[in-house]
Amino acid sequence: MVTPTSTRSRRRGHDPESVLSIAVGVFNERGYDGTSMEDLARALGVTKSAIYYHVPGKEQLLARALDRALDGLFELATDERAATGPAIDRLEWVVRQSVRLLIDRLPYVTLLLRVRGNSPTEQAALERRQEFDVFVGGLVREAADEGGIRPDVDPALLTRLLFGTVNSIAEWYRTAPGASAEDLADALVKMAFGGLRR
Amino acid sequence: MVTPTSTRSRRRGHDPESVLSIAVGVFNERGYDGTSMEDLARALGVTKSAIYYHVPGKEQLLARALDRALDGLFELATDERAATGPAIDRLEWVVRQSVRLLIDRLPYVTLLLRVRGNSPTEQAALERRQEFDVFVGGLVREAADEGGIRPDVDPALLTRLLFGTVNSIAEWYRTAPGASAEDLADALVKMAFGGLRR
Repeated sequence: MVTPTSTRSRRRGHDPESVLSIAVGVFNERGYDGTSMEDLARALGVTKSAIYYHVPGKEQLLARALDRALDGLFELATDERAATGPAIDRLEWVVRQSVRLLIDRLPYVTLLLRVRGNSPTEQAALERRQEFDVFVGGLVREAADEGGIRPDVDPALLTRLLFGTVNSIAEWYRTAPGASAEDLADALVKMAFGGLRR
Repeated sequence: MVTPTSTRSRRRGHDPESVLSIAVGVFNERGYDGTSMEDLARALGVTKSAIYYHVPGKEQLLARALDRALDGLFELATDERAATGPAIDRLEWVVRQSVRLLIDRLPYVTLLLRVRGNSPTEQAALERRQEFDVFVGGLVREAADEGGIRPDVDPALLTRLLFGTVNSIAEWYRTAPGASAEDLADALVKMAFGGLRR
């Protein structure tokens, strides 16, 4: 029953992009450490030996998935709009873009946020994530120095709270699907930059 | 070498409180599902058979640990100060108390935040947590109706963002030990209620 054509089309059904996307879904559901190559094969609908035709190994998939999230963060950190103008406005722009990125690449960012440094791949990802945190921390301090931010709170604490708020969206967004990335970014910026209190 | 006295004192060293505290540490480190009775026995420094002298089972420890977090949330939800005055002030009080509770019972709240509903105990905990979310959501809506909150953001979305911010503290607090619960509650309230922007 299996003709060369259907084999080809089955393989075409699993281009690198769809393999990555399915694998990330399994990682997020079972946890990366709890996922076996057999789990991945099952999710892809291929035999355990055929999985090696699609991917050399689990860790390579993890690295590609984490880069998907981290590359997005570094694109926005190196964007022209993060480099010119008052620091408070640049910070607001970076926060908005971070929310958009989180929604746009939700499974990849979710995976990144769960990384604990259990392997060289995870450690490398944590280091890149820390670089981004340093960039944002610098922006908050700059905004404080320019007088754009209220002076009565520690900039380092504000940085953590602000990005804690952004990152927390990954925990509940799937249960609040009515809101678009734009709605979320707007609501977050209004709350954190303008304040809830009327 | 093991005298009756040292056996008694070893047992006294593991009163229910210290058993619970050690077990929660193991649950948070290994994940509840990944923790065996043997892991618990090892962490308590007792033999696998002696563990049953201290606890009937894992799930009973989980239930007690989750109650430790949930009871705290319900104490503050039913406090007099959450019931009188303008809703925006009550909301601010509840947020402050939630931050204090999170720091004060950090391992228990961390465990609660990771619960996914994998057992009747976890489902019961999720239901109680949802009750608290409903209480807070009502408070935010009330504050919006009273005109205490900016009218241009959906109260449901604000509720999620606000408590996403509170809960995110559990993720990074251990790496920012310089800040006290009071510092954190202050910084969070200033950001979320007053706004970062000067």
